[in-house]
Amino acid sequence: MNPKALYNISYGLYIITSKKGDSLNGQIANTAFQISNDPPTIAVSINKNNLTHEYIKDSKFFAVSVIAQDAPLSLIGQFGFKSGREIDKFQGINKKLTPNGVPYIDENTLAYIEAKVVYEFDAGTHTVFVGQITEADVLGEGAPMTYAYYQQVKKGSVPPSAPTFNKKEEEKKTSSGKYVCSVCGYVYDPAVGDPDSGIAPGTPFEDLPDDWVCPVCGAGKKDFEKES
Amino acid sequence: MNPKALYNISYGLYIITSKKGDSLNGQIANTAFQISNDPPTIAVSINKNNLTHEYIKDSKFFAVSVIAQDAPLSLIGQFGFKSGREIDKFQGINKKLTPNGVPYIDENTLAYIEAKVVYEFDAGTHTVFVGQITEADVLGEGAPMTYAYYQQVKKGSVPPSAPTFNKKEEEKKTSSGKYVCSVCGYVYDPAVGDPDSGIAPGTPFEDLPDDWVCPVCGAGKKDFEKES
Repeated sequence: MNPKALYNISYGLYIITSKKGDSLNGQIANTAFQISNDPPTIAVSINKNNLTHEYIKDSKFFAVSVIAQDAPLSLIGQFGFKSGREIDKFQGINKKLTPNGVPYIDENTLAYIEAKVVYEFDAGTHTVFVGQITEADVLGEGAPMTYAYYQQVKKGSVPPSAPTFNKKEEEKKTSSGKYVCSVCGYVYDPAVGDPDSGIAPGTPFEDLPDDWVCPVCGAGKKDFEKES
Repeated sequence: MNPKALYNISYGLYIITSKKGDSLNGQIANTAFQISNDPPTIAVSINKNNLTHEYIKDSKFFAVSVIAQDAPLSLIGQFGFKSGREIDKFQGINKKLTPNGVPYIDENTLAYIEAKVVYEFDAGTHTVFVGQITEADVLGEGAPMTYAYYQQVKKGSVPPSAPTFNKKEEEKKTSSGKYVCSVCGYVYDPAVGDPDSGIAPGTPFEDLPDDWVCPVCGAGKKDFEKES
């Protein structure tokens, strides 16, 4: 089996949110898809170790916020590389609540979809939750962020809890002049810069301001390593 | 619920194949996705009325062929708008067999993935088959066809058996100068032409050769209707 065959599957990029009592949480996922038309159902695949998994199990509700292509990496970093067990994921985020009290993201997103779990199945590391769609609305105009765009254009990294994580590929992402974040794996590419933070393309890593931080996880310059 | 919210979910475009005894069949699907890493599993959503559904139920194997972005519409038409009950889907198609005898498409594709069904669940109009990946390989280089590219750039249409079919949107796709295929819903747009068949952009429908056929389903010019 050649694992590279799997890289050709197309995915979007979403924030999957849920609640447990009054507590709210959310996480990044690349796996959300409509599976039937009548009734309208949507499925998500969630790592069993994640707090959002526990919340969906408890409330039986989840919401999918579709991330816009021009969203900053910091949004993905906050929901994708940090745990709701340590921080409030919604700190500084413009959120709203669905009719059933599930949070969704109301900035840098194109749409949200709320669903009630009607089926779930065990897929080893992950549980697939199938939800009947209870509410959905458009939040903005533009192209959705795809997984390919995030990796190829935004140079984003993937946490080990993702269904599609591949350790070797994450390690191979560097080439001359690039620096890798030792916390989350984000690669600073001087050819791309960090436009979200006002860093122009062509800026060498050495010339970044001392207070520059990783746009994905917020780690400082000292946490970056030159490619070996 | 605003159904347009669902249009923001990203999909690829695949040919899902299976077998029943010595008979082979396949169909187009936009829903194929890796759902876990360990064990590696992949899921597809298949309409219960389709012949491929019957074949997967019987053999417990399916294969996913990833369509290349530059594949001709005729490939999608052959597998997406015709039934294996009426034609041999593999007529004129370069196919090979996986180790377990499942066909896959070896032209205009980037990769194939073979899986053995380990789980299935009923999603109303569709069944979701979850398969453990048994074999996979890369077949070509390039970008995969996405559902968005197929609809926006290739002007492709969607059959009513798709999880994401929307009657109103299919009917709204026309504007001045365009002609709609009454068989499959493909829209001939003179601004785009039909490059797969050697028709240059800017060619009015009226100037198409008499033997021109719908690039998706093969219907003749007489089966096209001017937008109303």
